[in-house]
Amino acid sequence: MLSTVPVMFSYWAKPHHALELHQALNDHMADACNAHPRHYAGIGTVPLQSPRLAVQELERCMDQLGLQGVQIGSHVNDWNLDAPELFEFFQAASELGAAILVHPWDMMGTASMPKYWLPWLVGMPAEQSRAACSLVFGGVLERLPKLKICMAHGGGSFPYTIGRIEHGFNMRPDLVATDNPRNPREYLARMYFDSWVADDRALRYLLDTCGVSRVMLGTDYPFPLGEQTPGAGIASLGLGEADQARLYHGTALEWLGLPKSRFA
Amino acid sequence: MLSTVPVMFSYWAKPHHALELHQALNDHMADACNAHPRHYAGIGTVPLQSPRLAVQELERCMDQLGLQGVQIGSHVNDWNLDAPELFEFFQAASELGAAILVHPWDMMGTASMPKYWLPWLVGMPAEQSRAACSLVFGGVLERLPKLKICMAHGGGSFPYTIGRIEHGFNMRPDLVATDNPRNPREYLARMYFDSWVADDRALRYLLDTCGVSRVMLGTDYPFPLGEQTPGAGIASLGLGEADQARLYHGTALEWLGLPKSRFA
Repeated sequence: MLSTVPVMFSYWAKPHHALELHQALNDHMADACNAHPRHYAGIGTVPLQSPRLAVQELERCMDQLGLQGVQIGSHVNDWNLDAPELFEFFQAASELGAAILVHPWDMMGTASMPKYWLPWLVGMPAEQSRAACSLVFGGVLERLPKLKICMAHGGGSFPYTIGRIEHGFNMRPDLVATDNPRNPREYLARMYFDSWVADDRALRYLLDTCGVSRVMLGTDYPFPLGEQTPGAGIASLGLGEADQARLYHGTALEWLGLPKSRFA
Repeated sequence: MLSTVPVMFSYWAKPHHALELHQALNDHMADACNAHPRHYAGIGTVPLQSPRLAVQELERCMDQLGLQGVQIGSHVNDWNLDAPELFEFFQAASELGAAILVHPWDMMGTASMPKYWLPWLVGMPAEQSRAACSLVFGGVLERLPKLKICMAHGGGSFPYTIGRIEHGFNMRPDLVATDNPRNPREYLARMYFDSWVADDRALRYLLDTCGVSRVMLGTDYPFPLGEQTPGAGIASLGLGEADQARLYHGTALEWLGLPKSRFA
């Protein structure tokens, strides 16, 4: 499954300029997938700074280009993913059956962490937790039960801190449960996560916490923070054949809405 | 072990004003511990916005007040914990044998996460990772091998993302290993962590990753995000007696430099 690199999100740009870029990127993505349909499926990119244009391009991706969904950032400028402005986009994605990959971007704390690549090592895991919490507490997942969200980078720090997040929900519902009364832990079974956590013990934790059926191989390829031998982390766990198959392609096919025969 | 609430850090204040407050807080802390020496040990607070005054008050805490160390924030205004300006403080702490508790504060992303208590649920775990990474990659722990650092809140997201952090170190040493060539994973065995992660599975992960000998009971009492029945999380794991004793008081006594007989 191919996706555009997040640096192309261009949420900072004027909406129509970003749309023009995204159209070109999505056309190219569709060309690559059409040229090698047994090897590639693809998700596109949309100018989320204009939800209206994002819906328009999402519809084109799904209806005309044969893509399976789109990748979005962990927030969009000043909007977290619970922003009312973004709901029409998620609603359209749900109705279209589009797979949505949430990738960390525009990391919190960047200005105050200039050294040691900390926006990537510290900020990115936090971005994924911010995004997941916003989708959960903002009621986006609750109102759109068919929405197919996958959190990249194993959901960042979200799965590891779900106990803390749940505890906050239980102890201060006046602050946390303002827009959705449901326990956040329930949504672990309503989201997908990629497997790329760069650590065997963390991957086992992720599988134990979220369930093998919610996790799919993720690589972050071709970035240096990615898995240099895709799938090696899953292989090293020594799982049974069924679980391995689920992680290598079963979960991803379900999320993308594709039959295995597409790649046979 | 008592500590001052982080909201009293007052790093925003003029140094001498903060010092005056901290002196009063530390005098009160010493009074409480002296009144109930079999029940309480204490750590103080120092005006780290002036490392010189912080060292002065740390010396008073250790030499005159009978406290065991001090609590500090995960960063100090514009300084991360690797800031050269702060090194004299850590050097003094190392020489004095002072226990240093790092607590999340002034959370990254606060302005952009106004809803759902996210600075506490998302920002605080990230703050602890920022602080730990700064101490590691800045070479503070490397240059001061006797420095006794405990990371509150189980080290936040740091232990869970240690594989990612190590991978970044291996793949982009030009960005990450600029000030310390040693693998960050080695420092898990040179820091202490409290146990307060609000989740049984996360606590097991923490113990497996950092070692029982590096983890001590933490409560975050009296805050609502804290453990409402202190020690219940540790008790629920069903560990052997020796491991339980280590977690309940053994690690803490080692970190604080106190004999068990003090509390007999």
